[in-house]
Amino acid sequence: MSTYAPPLQRLITELSKLPGVGGRTAQRLAFHLLRASEEDATALAEAIREVKEKIGFCEICFNLAEGPRCRICEDERRDPDLICVVEEPVDVISIERTHEFRGRYHVLGGALSPIDGIDPEDLRIEPLYARVRAGSVREIVIATNPTTTGEATALHIAAGLRAIAPELTVTRLASGLPVGADLEYADELTLGRAFAGRRAL
Amino acid sequence: MSTYAPPLQRLITELSKLPGVGGRTAQRLAFHLLRASEEDATALAEAIREVKEKIGFCEICFNLAEGPRCRICEDERRDPDLICVVEEPVDVISIERTHEFRGRYHVLGGALSPIDGIDPEDLRIEPLYARVRAGSVREIVIATNPTTTGEATALHIAAGLRAIAPELTVTRLASGLPVGADLEYADELTLGRAFAGRRAL
Repeated sequence: MSTYAPPLQRLITELSKLPGVGGRTAQRLAFHLLRASEEDATALAEAIREVKEKIGFCEICFNLAEGPRCRICEDERRDPDLICVVEEPVDVISIERTHEFRGRYHVLGGALSPIDGIDPEDLRIEPLYARVRAGSVREIVIATNPTTTGEATALHIAAGLRAIAPELTVTRLASGLPVGADLEYADELTLGRAFAGRRAL
Repeated sequence: MSTYAPPLQRLITELSKLPGVGGRTAQRLAFHLLRASEEDATALAEAIREVKEKIGFCEICFNLAEGPRCRICEDERRDPDLICVVEEPVDVISIERTHEFRGRYHVLGGALSPIDGIDPEDLRIEPLYARVRAGSVREIVIATNPTTTGEATALHIAAGLRAIAPELTVTRLASGLPVGADLEYADELTLGRAFAGRRAL
């Protein structure tokens, strides 16, 4: 579109790559940023850079972390023998909001999906087994999404855990979460109930 | 929210300042950027910086410009004696898309709104009068929005122009039913205008 100056066109293009942002929305956001104060625009640009620069993965649980370990793994008060397995770091946030869980996490980095070429070795499943082998883990709560891929991942991990630690308690979040839903969008109450009602797999 | 690492919290806060972006959307966008490639995130941050750095206002018409003048004011083929007055630079883009207008623009930078403290001296109205006084302008098309503030701005400017250049043609964009609209769902004001502005077939 020759009517946009190239820097503006570039910004619109980059904004369009964001999820849920179409061409019109990208244009609106770009013009908003043009009108915004220098400070606000710079703060956003800086925040994007900083988040990529400073935030990495926890070496233990693969949650987001500013240093080598995440806040939860560094928190002595969190039970190290109770591990909640989730697909993505955002799921940790959702579960933390319920205040129902006082253990640690393990972030898989996705769910098994052979169609999309996501196999067990693409997820942090082996490091989970290593944590179980190395430590004194008492229970694993599998909190992958209640979707086809999330369920498949839960079953795969439950089978793997049974093989290496038959005495381990492996649980799954209770229904209460609507089937087909996404953890990221669940309300706190529903997610809290699902935690309270978790059952053995 | 103590569950977010500070850099992530900052990014979410900055994203929340964008129009139409609430807390949940900001969180989703932030996690998307965390997952995105280093290049994509950097490209967005860079595009924001660049747009603020390189894009300013045209010294003639106050449209967005990469240099001292915008592309339209620099285009010799555009009729300099026909000026379309709009509220915002984004309106120039909308009008350019119609390919109906071959004149130049004048961007006011908003509309008169005493309630919000926007008075004539806050808009680029004086520079418009200066262009009329200095040049050989034949017609001014006032294309402010068909809203209360846009209409008030149009009337104010039309009166001002009559005072300084009585022979000048001053027009206003036609107001009426949008193309493809349904009479049944048109609001009374729009329908009233469409009636008032009816033309012989």
